[in-house]
Amino acid sequence: MASEIVVDHREKAISLLKADSDKILKLIQVQMDNLTMPQCPLYEEVLDTQMFGLSREMDFAVRLGLITEKEGKDILSKLEIELSALYEAWERN
Amino acid sequence: MASEIVVDHREKAISLLKADSDKILKLIQVQMDNLTMPQCPLYEEVLDTQMFGLSREMDFAVRLGLITEKEGKDILSKLEIELSALYEAWERN
Repeated sequence: MASEIVVDHREKAISLLKADSDKILKLIQVQMDNLTMPQCPLYEEVLDTQMFGLSREMDFAVRLGLITEKEGKDILSKLEIELSALYEAWERN
Repeated sequence: MASEIVVDHREKAISLLKADSDKILKLIQVQMDNLTMPQCPLYEEVLDTQMFGLSREMDFAVRLGLITEKEGKDILSKLEIELSALYEAWERN
């Protein structure tokens, strides 16, 4: 029973972080489709702010012992790869 | 046993958020003592960034079910009162 509750918080933390990571990706996608180019300072500011917010959430989850540093880094790496792919696709258009 | 573990995460979340709130207060105190005045854009930018980071941590803790919205707001209100007192003390000097 005790370990089930711990797993529940752990799983919820990871699923929230992944959802927030996806939100950043979608936000950047929308920005690329509709508003501004990646060279635009607004794009960089939005991305920086959102990445900072996500990294603070991750750091908090690590300090709570809900996720490992590696799990946090894996989510960030995945997001960075997806952002790069998005950026490359944008450059080809 | 199960409820003890939940309380542990709840208490740890609150104590981390209070510690981060105190860190912001100390950072602003150091900035006032040594670097810049509250009117300076740097002061506002640092404060905005740190408050945004703290609010993201709180929001994350609320979504995890570790703290209530009221508990988060109470920590923020306390910080705002302390920052106001700091600012008023600075103005008197």
